[in-house]
Amino acid sequence: MTKQTFRIAMISPVAWRTPPRAYGAWETVASNITEELVQRGWDVTLFATKDSLTRAKLRAVVERGYEEDPDVDPKVCEYLHLSEAFERADEFDLIHSHYDFMSLAYSRLTKTPMVTTIHGFSSPKVLPVYRKYNEHVNYVSISNADRAPELDYIATVYNGIDTESYTFYTEPGEHLVFLGRIHPDKGTHLACETARKSGRRLIIAGIIQDKEYFQEKVKPHIDDVNIQFIGAVGIEGKNKLFKQAYAVLHLNELPERFGLVLVEANAAGVPVIAMDRGSCREVIKDSETGFLVNNVDEAVKALDHIQDLDRYSCRKRVEKYFSIKSMVDGYEEVYSRILNKALAD
Amino acid sequence: MTKQTFRIAMISPVAWRTPPRAYGAWETVASNITEELVQRGWDVTLFATKDSLTRAKLRAVVERGYEEDPDVDPKVCEYLHLSEAFERADEFDLIHSHYDFMSLAYSRLTKTPMVTTIHGFSSPKVLPVYRKYNEHVNYVSISNADRAPELDYIATVYNGIDTESYTFYTEPGEHLVFLGRIHPDKGTHLACETARKSGRRLIIAGIIQDKEYFQEKVKPHIDDVNIQFIGAVGIEGKNKLFKQAYAVLHLNELPERFGLVLVEANAAGVPVIAMDRGSCREVIKDSETGFLVNNVDEAVKALDHIQDLDRYSCRKRVEKYFSIKSMVDGYEEVYSRILNKALAD
Repeated sequence: MTKQTFRIAMISPVAWRTPPRAYGAWETVASNITEELVQRGWDVTLFATKDSLTRAKLRAVVERGYEEDPDVDPKVCEYLHLSEAFERADEFDLIHSHYDFMSLAYSRLTKTPMVTTIHGFSSPKVLPVYRKYNEHVNYVSISNADRAPELDYIATVYNGIDTESYTFYTEPGEHLVFLGRIHPDKGTHLACETARKSGRRLIIAGIIQDKEYFQEKVKPHIDDVNIQFIGAVGIEGKNKLFKQAYAVLHLNELPERFGLVLVEANAAGVPVIAMDRGSCREVIKDSETGFLVNNVDEAVKALDHIQDLDRYSCRKRVEKYFSIKSMVDGYEEVYSRILNKALAD
Repeated sequence: MTKQTFRIAMISPVAWRTPPRAYGAWETVASNITEELVQRGWDVTLFATKDSLTRAKLRAVVERGYEEDPDVDPKVCEYLHLSEAFERADEFDLIHSHYDFMSLAYSRLTKTPMVTTIHGFSSPKVLPVYRKYNEHVNYVSISNADRAPELDYIATVYNGIDTESYTFYTEPGEHLVFLGRIHPDKGTHLACETARKSGRRLIIAGIIQDKEYFQEKVKPHIDDVNIQFIGAVGIEGKNKLFKQAYAVLHLNELPERFGLVLVEANAAGVPVIAMDRGSCREVIKDSETGFLVNNVDEAVKALDHIQDLDRYSCRKRVEKYFSIKSMVDGYEEVYSRILNKALAD
């Protein structure tokens, strides 16, 4: 069997288009993997919304993302989408699902082996389904930190970004940058505190996910002189932001599952000061592509050493470990292990 | 193949215990069918919550009804429950599902034929799933009125009640009775109006489902003299209520899917004045077990003719068409048609 004859079914979520127009992290990853696999000569069928854009074969029964379509019932979309994929399971040698625990429920009703990327556990309440299929489905974690101790994983495959989209800046900017959802988990208020204590200007960018938090803990700091809020930004806005960045502050209060922003900043050559929680230690190499800290005071101190870091190292690390290429290398390795196991059985 | 060797999988919902402790219409029907089938010698396996009570074989993975368990995620229960049933589908000659559109999604992943009782369409948005499986799954409607024109049905099987639970009263009581959810759909306010215009006392029983409606349209009428509200009642309360009943008023504003209350009243010998909407015409035989009307004035007039009706006819009609026995006769007929078709194929 060659990669041209090895038929892969890629199941993307149908909350948004694949790739999404704006928000939609899981659909983004599914799209990046799919397009790179096609580029490398794999036979891929993408199960996604009908308006999805892909060079793979598209199989779709849901018109558009249910988050973008008030006329549909999300659960109905989910059931139509997943049943379509599994009713065609025999047409494939491997199913790669990004559809959370729901796709697991069909996995024993087909002989086709399945790999599921666990993009996150929405709640510990979903673990029983993952436990049930632990022996049967191959789980991929998106960081070692995000693994559930009770589950077995075939591999960790880090999410990869399209490095070409991020301009590399050889010289640092002047400002501190916070980029991400405005939410207590993300520590926007700690970025403000760090800015104040260090005397540096902070630019905050991102969607306001927690309005009360924004009003109470962030907005009082915004004076458009020392602390500025510019709202959500797309890829152009990010590049512009990274150009101005002395360092990105990512003082998350909760463990990160992966931490895409850290990778994006590094791709631009910008070092990151991140809390030493969750996957940050895997994404940021301490004292090389940023600094891992435990509190605001450590973050302030770390700022004095930003210039000691080599911006090229930041970029190189992303290309090596967090690019679409490295991600798909990881999944190709997973696929061959599953394929070899299937052939041996 | 005999009924002893014909293996039926009965899939009950897991919102509540089967049978439910109080509310839970779909679980009640699933339980009634299951227990009567076992009584008749069928080999039935009930898929329901672990705390369910049955003389069939019980297969359960969900501890208790998700409506009764704040610690679980209903969707997780649903996926664990349905996948369990369909992973065992090969052990059965027939699957009889009461689990709405969600169980349809698994039906093509097994060779075992399936019948689904459509207890109701929660919204037109769920119809696409029913359409998808129209050729594949045998649909049963609970009244002819509740059929979706675009779907094919193998039969209508009316829900059946345990007639033994309802005392038959040879003599009428004095009062009007409204029994059901307090909700504009059920026309509680029209029952009040009928009572006022006819000068008869009305007793209202049922859960308050629409609080605003109750406050604005029902409560102002309650004076404990002419109109009384007694809250929700169980089977004892219903029997007591029917003893006092001159007639039951069921002036529903929306088409009924089936209309259990009409059957219960008739079982006690109580005639029903019902709006001529939805299934009421199938359940009530006009001018024999009650009167079908189009508005309050017709309801008031009909009250004058209640004494012309034969209370024994009311009871007899329930025993013939709306008892557990008649319901299971109906399903046995459906099963043999499916079985014969399977044997012929």
